[in-house]
Amino acid sequence: MSLVVIGTVAFDAIETPFGKTDKIVGGAATYASLAASYFYDQTKIVAVVGDDFPQADIDDFGKHGISTEGLQVKKGEKSFFWSGKYHNDLNNRDTLITDLNVLADFDPIIPESYQDCTYLMLGNLTPQVQQTVIGRLKNRPKLIVMDTMNFWMDIAMPELKATIAMVDVLTINDAEARQLADEYSLAKAAKKILKMGPKYLIIKKGEHGALLFHENQMFSAPALPLEEVFDPTGAGDTFAGGFIGYLANTDDISFDNMKRAIIYGSAMASFCVEKFGTERIKNLASDELKSRVNEFVNLSHFEII
Amino acid sequence: MSLVVIGTVAFDAIETPFGKTDKIVGGAATYASLAASYFYDQTKIVAVVGDDFPQADIDDFGKHGISTEGLQVKKGEKSFFWSGKYHNDLNNRDTLITDLNVLADFDPIIPESYQDCTYLMLGNLTPQVQQTVIGRLKNRPKLIVMDTMNFWMDIAMPELKATIAMVDVLTINDAEARQLADEYSLAKAAKKILKMGPKYLIIKKGEHGALLFHENQMFSAPALPLEEVFDPTGAGDTFAGGFIGYLANTDDISFDNMKRAIIYGSAMASFCVEKFGTERIKNLASDELKSRVNEFVNLSHFEII
Repeated sequence: MSLVVIGTVAFDAIETPFGKTDKIVGGAATYASLAASYFYDQTKIVAVVGDDFPQADIDDFGKHGISTEGLQVKKGEKSFFWSGKYHNDLNNRDTLITDLNVLADFDPIIPESYQDCTYLMLGNLTPQVQQTVIGRLKNRPKLIVMDTMNFWMDIAMPELKATIAMVDVLTINDAEARQLADEYSLAKAAKKILKMGPKYLIIKKGEHGALLFHENQMFSAPALPLEEVFDPTGAGDTFAGGFIGYLANTDDISFDNMKRAIIYGSAMASFCVEKFGTERIKNLASDELKSRVNEFVNLSHFEII
Repeated sequence: MSLVVIGTVAFDAIETPFGKTDKIVGGAATYASLAASYFYDQTKIVAVVGDDFPQADIDDFGKHGISTEGLQVKKGEKSFFWSGKYHNDLNNRDTLITDLNVLADFDPIIPESYQDCTYLMLGNLTPQVQQTVIGRLKNRPKLIVMDTMNFWMDIAMPELKATIAMVDVLTINDAEARQLADEYSLAKAAKKILKMGPKYLIIKKGEHGALLFHENQMFSAPALPLEEVFDPTGAGDTFAGGFIGYLANTDDISFDNMKRAIIYGSAMASFCVEKFGTERIKNLASDELKSRVNEFVNLSHFEII
């Protein structure tokens, strides 16, 4: 049994109203695997970097018990680089630079030792690469969670829908759910999307929390109102990583356990935004996580008498 | 003991993507008192209309057990009229017509029989009129809930702040909380607003639910994802009316009971938007309310094990 995370491992340069960074380590697989590692000790990544990627940062994965056997290092090539600037409200951002570099012809090689994969996290990548990964696993995982974004809806909708049809859980934001389903009402959009194949749909609403849809069931998870949101980069990937990491650890994919997994994922994401990049989620103490989850319980608990 | 609701009783003409109405009965006091009447049988309104306001519609309040002794009918004058058109997303609207009419010189007269007021709902009106009502009650009510809007922040901030300082619970939306506190973070904005006087702050987030702040406590209530939102007019007033009606009925203003009151208010608001104007909330069966509240419980319940 293991959790395989595929996605980008990359450099980001981020500017928010509170400051800016030089190139720092980012990428969907980085955030998701770090978040998952707090729950599950058999987390493995599939990704590609150039030889500009520091060995010390590769070693950081190992320190979190994450296998990097599936991390390809391409000699003479450069790592994927993204640069963006957030608006004052932190809900919108402009992409300044996207240098695909090694990502342009990424062939996701699955090491033999990863074939025990039971939980698969497909981080945001081209739908074709996401599909390739599913095809290269000899046994279909117990649960496949897929993240994607509006970019693929704009340029590759047929391929995207074909991939969505193969997964169990789709995680997208509210604007993306509306775009994918062509429905303004999220309740209607969710119904349409569940007909596209996934058994579960998670709609991420940032500071407004998240919604889980499954058959006729719904769950609404709150977001913790934070005094300081420093850098939203990676929050969605961190959420997804915490979500699937909790499921892998408990090995229970019931609706009730998915609700808990969403709360754990939300708690991880609430840490992520408190500092630039992965700084906060790389250095979490287990009592911090426990007390943050308690805050979510207190925040949303009520009793009808 | 009674619940006094002050606000507008008026005509609205509404256009949404789903249709449009001629002049129908609306107004903050109308929505709030109707919602409150499902919880509490000693609800009384203070408002003003012209003699164009049909007696049948005044009688409708009586049918819900709402006292209209404080509803002034001005001979030869016209009722307040508002006309608006909603955008496709229903979150934004353009005001087409605002005819103040009788509202221009509204003097809120409190009948002697209203002096047993223990719960006071100040619907959206000029802050001066809201203050006048507080001043005319011989005994300070046990709980004063105040609703307001960005319009008064734009043109009468000092008067608004003076009124806010006199109330126990302030209900505003997220954009208004940010404007009032001049803070983007809602957690920071809430802290600032609680320093302005109110002991409780409710931030209404429409389709994203509501937040309650009190000292260092927070509560996040979900909104029910609805397949059809037909007309959002009056949802905030209906929420406030259900909230204070539940509190008046239970006569318990603890934080835990306020959480329940928010759920009941949210349930009432979720009915309100299903039809034009007051149509839906004028004709609710008690088992409908009970089953809607159950939906809120199922929607947000989770257990950490």
